[in-house]
Amino acid sequence: MANEKKVVTGLGKPEIHRVLIRGYDLTKDLVGKITFADMTYLMLVGRFPNDGERRMTDALLTILVEHGMVSSVVSARLCYSTAPEALQAAVASSILGAGSVHLGSSEWSAKMLVKALPASSSPGDLDAAAAQVVEQHAKKKKRIAGIGHRTHPEGDPRAVRLFEIARETGVYGRHCDFLQRICKAAEAQYGRPLPANVTGAIGAIALDLGLPWQITKAFALIGRTLGAVAHIGEEIRNPMAENINAAIKSQMVYDFDNK
Amino acid sequence: MANEKKVVTGLGKPEIHRVLIRGYDLTKDLVGKITFADMTYLMLVGRFPNDGERRMTDALLTILVEHGMVSSVVSARLCYSTAPEALQAAVASSILGAGSVHLGSSEWSAKMLVKALPASSSPGDLDAAAAQVVEQHAKKKKRIAGIGHRTHPEGDPRAVRLFEIARETGVYGRHCDFLQRICKAAEAQYGRPLPANVTGAIGAIALDLGLPWQITKAFALIGRTLGAVAHIGEEIRNPMAENINAAIKSQMVYDFDNK
Amino acid sequence: MANEKKVVTGLGKPEIHRVLIRGYDLTKDLVGKITFADMTYLMLVGRFPNDGERRMTDALLTILVEHGMVSSVVSARLCYSTAPEALQAAVASSILGAGSVHLGSSEWSAKMLVKALPASSSPGDLDAAAAQVVEQHAKKKKRIAGIGHRTHPEGDPRAVRLFEIARETGVYGRHCDFLQRICKAAEAQYGRPLPANVTGAIGAIALDLGLPWQITKAFALIGRTLGAVAHIGEEIRNPMAENINAAIKSQMVYDFDNK
Amino acid sequence: MANEKKVVTGLGKPEIHRVLIRGYDLTKDLVGKITFADMTYLMLVGRFPNDGERRMTDALLTILVEHGMVSSVVSARLCYSTAPEALQAAVASSILGAGSVHLGSSEWSAKMLVKALPASSSPGDLDAAAAQVVEQHAKKKKRIAGIGHRTHPEGDPRAVRLFEIARETGVYGRHCDFLQRICKAAEAQYGRPLPANVTGAIGAIALDLGLPWQITKAFALIGRTLGAVAHIGEEIRNPMAENINAAIKSQMVYDFDNK
Repeated sequence: MANEKKVVTGLGKPEIHRVLIRGYDLTKDLVGKITFADMTYLMLVGRFPNDGERRMTDALLTILVEHGMVSSVVSARLCYSTAPEALQAAVASSILGAGSVHLGSSEWSAKMLVKALPASSSPGDLDAAAAQVVEQHAKKKKRIAGIGHRTHPEGDPRAVRLFEIARETGVYGRHCDFLQRICKAAEAQYGRPLPANVTGAIGAIALDLGLPWQITKAFALIGRTLGAVAHIGEEIRNPMAENINAAIKSQMVYDFDNK
Repeated sequence: MANEKKVVTGLGKPEIHRVLIRGYDLTKDLVGKITFADMTYLMLVGRFPNDGERRMTDALLTILVEHGMVSSVVSARLCYSTAPEALQAAVASSILGAGSVHLGSSEWSAKMLVKALPASSSPGDLDAAAAQVVEQHAKKKKRIAGIGHRTHPEGDPRAVRLFEIARETGVYGRHCDFLQRICKAAEAQYGRPLPANVTGAIGAIALDLGLPWQITKAFALIGRTLGAVAHIGEEIRNPMAENINAAIKSQMVYDFDNK
Repeated sequence: MANEKKVVTGLGKPEIHRVLIRGYDLTKDLVGKITFADMTYLMLVGRFPNDGERRMTDALLTILVEHGMVSSVVSARLCYSTAPEALQAAVASSILGAGSVHLGSSEWSAKMLVKALPASSSPGDLDAAAAQVVEQHAKKKKRIAGIGHRTHPEGDPRAVRLFEIARETGVYGRHCDFLQRICKAAEAQYGRPLPANVTGAIGAIALDLGLPWQITKAFALIGRTLGAVAHIGEEIRNPMAENINAAIKSQMVYDFDNK
Repeated sequence: MANEKKVVTGLGKPEIHRVLIRGYDLTKDLVGKITFADMTYLMLVGRFPNDGERRMTDALLTILVEHGMVSSVVSARLCYSTAPEALQAAVASSILGAGSVHLGSSEWSAKMLVKALPASSSPGDLDAAAAQVVEQHAKKKKRIAGIGHRTHPEGDPRAVRLFEIARETGVYGRHCDFLQRICKAAEAQYGRPLPANVTGAIGAIALDLGLPWQITKAFALIGRTLGAVAHIGEEIRNPMAENINAAIKSQMVYDFDNK
């Protein structure tokens, strides 16, 4: 009752001589003793990871950091070149693209898994639920988030590697298994290979690690924050923003009539 | 000549069956084998860290993740509550505040160190350069970025801890040393303790790790990206945005006259 | 064929001695001769507005500018107080919250109208389509975007005013009419008044003005950009960020157990 | 005393049946009766503009809306293509680049004018102060914000037009005059034409309109918010993000050695 309007958190508490993080003393218990993957797991799941969970977390944090001169780092470089006094703005400009089409689709895939996963663990029930997912998407002519890849029909090597590590570390669980069953059902339906893609793998593994589906995009956001800073670091040594603009300009057509 | 308008990167290259990161195969050489701190160092410095550098990098990545219900996470929570379909927007809203006054001041401190650090290593020259920094700031009545702290006159425990780890790991070098000399010179000038604060420590240590001053804010941005996601995770389980707004509303005064 | 990889725009073309906007010379034909509402209409619809459309556009641009110390301006103020060198970051932090729950819901309402509006103009067909919308939402227990308001059961005065202007200016058309029919059908279904709210009105009117549903949020974004700058202007004269943080702190409870 | 921790605003107050804006009733007094330029002036300056101030405000709001496929709209288009569910994120990504190098430089120019403008109105004192500004920049080998333009050595036509309107509307005042004197002094120093550029003109005119220097960037932010939405509107009808990426890709060089 009294707490109705209170602002409650169990994540961190700044005191005068120390900061508490989920009850741990930041400088005494954590900094210098744990890795960033430990901190990630502690913050997002609420406890320390075991060795397998830590290795899996490091893999998820690493997998999306860098992919060449993609949209998100083009934005970071262009933004930095016009506002170099605000590195944070260039990084923000970059991660803002982590949405449903690219980078952020783990969230949609994870949501689908959580909504459709049956309580039962029987293979028959799981396969029936997987088939239902495929059927519902087919009826609405909707792509299933997290499976299929334009340039890797035979399987995104990043997804393959993540599932490999998930098995090795014992993280591979009900959600990973269910996603694979959905892939099989979709392959049966469409008559072509439709393996899990990298954001599908991230979503399923993050769920098996204990994250809620709404924040499975965390790994894309943290990874690409690093990636954006690295591209800006390169931009400082060897500026490319002007050449990026020139490349676009070389293809420009202005068409004021056809609107 | 021919390369004048080329768009060049040495960070990553997406190929059909693999992604290269600074020449390494992402799935074969990196994911599952390295930690996120390794990846951070590889991306920002260009090579793998040794054990000490890795531990130091983990410490820098961890130190600013969480500090309770501060401005940056208040923004994240408020943004998420009105636009839950875009986690990335809430995270971006949060890191956008990493500027010169708070969270991002490592950049200003590191820039100052780089500009003022003499080529000579003699203690006398270093102290003279430190004294000059203090004098120049005093003349302009400007605060020296990276030293002093309102609530920790005797020393921010987070800075103390980071320098401790810097010494243990062998990372502590010319920039850390120079910042400490500036603190001493400032204490002599102003007659009160002016120890390095946490962003000062981050700036100096990041320089000693090999980062350019412009991207020393990387650790704040990566750390707070994690912190923002964690607060949103908590917001999902136990929404506080309404109570935050109520707390502000309880103190509201509208004054249309005194403009 | 040859144009397949071309980058085409019909909005603007920078030439050496002039800038063309949709074919008009910026400095000769537009600046100093037209209002911002004209420019808004020209950019978003592709032609100049008539007098009624101009007045309606001004009303839409004005309606969401300011609403007191709401979430979006709290974020702007907090961000500016820690990163005053980057006004644009504080403004961005503010508009990032224009999502499905608040400020941005015009998009969801407009999409619903476009998808459900029948080709026929007969009142019977329109009412049947409206009833179907209500029924489908009722079946899924989903709120209908753009109608109903917690604090204005009898009608959001901002929506009332916008529809009034829409009628006066001749902008009121099929989409406004259809939204009103949906409100009536919902009131019949739920037995209580469920009038259009302000973002519902904006969505319907923007459609009748000729905007695609995906960008009806434009008025919220432009308006709140102005609102955020104004709050930052006030913050500069009379800083409130610290008091906002104090108000939140006064209600803080730390709970490390109940996670 | 009692108000020390209060959160005060004089901009807007939401009441149950009305919203007050600087004391005016939003729906009764403003919406439908005033233009967006009026609202801009009321929010930023605190009173309604006269006819000249209104025309000038419309000109400032219009001048930077559109400039072809520049960096800021490239970011908007790329962001939207990967996160179409969050228009606000694409718009934010776009305006984040309004910094010191481009779009936002009005702030730096206006700050310089405010700091250097003498109290005296005598032409001699003004010219002396202008000469001092030029000298100080020359000594530090710094560019003077707001003057000179790479592609318009003879004068940015947008600046010329804005000053023309400033004279016609009676807005042209001390700050515009002082900037022109600085241009003259710079031309004398460097022996080549160095006319005011568009952001210099915006900064000086905004000061003469009564805005504080810190928020003169308002016009760039509001204008480009509209510009970004318009480009996204075009992107929806005729998607270009893929072709933009292809244009960049066609110029890519990967260089893992030269780091």
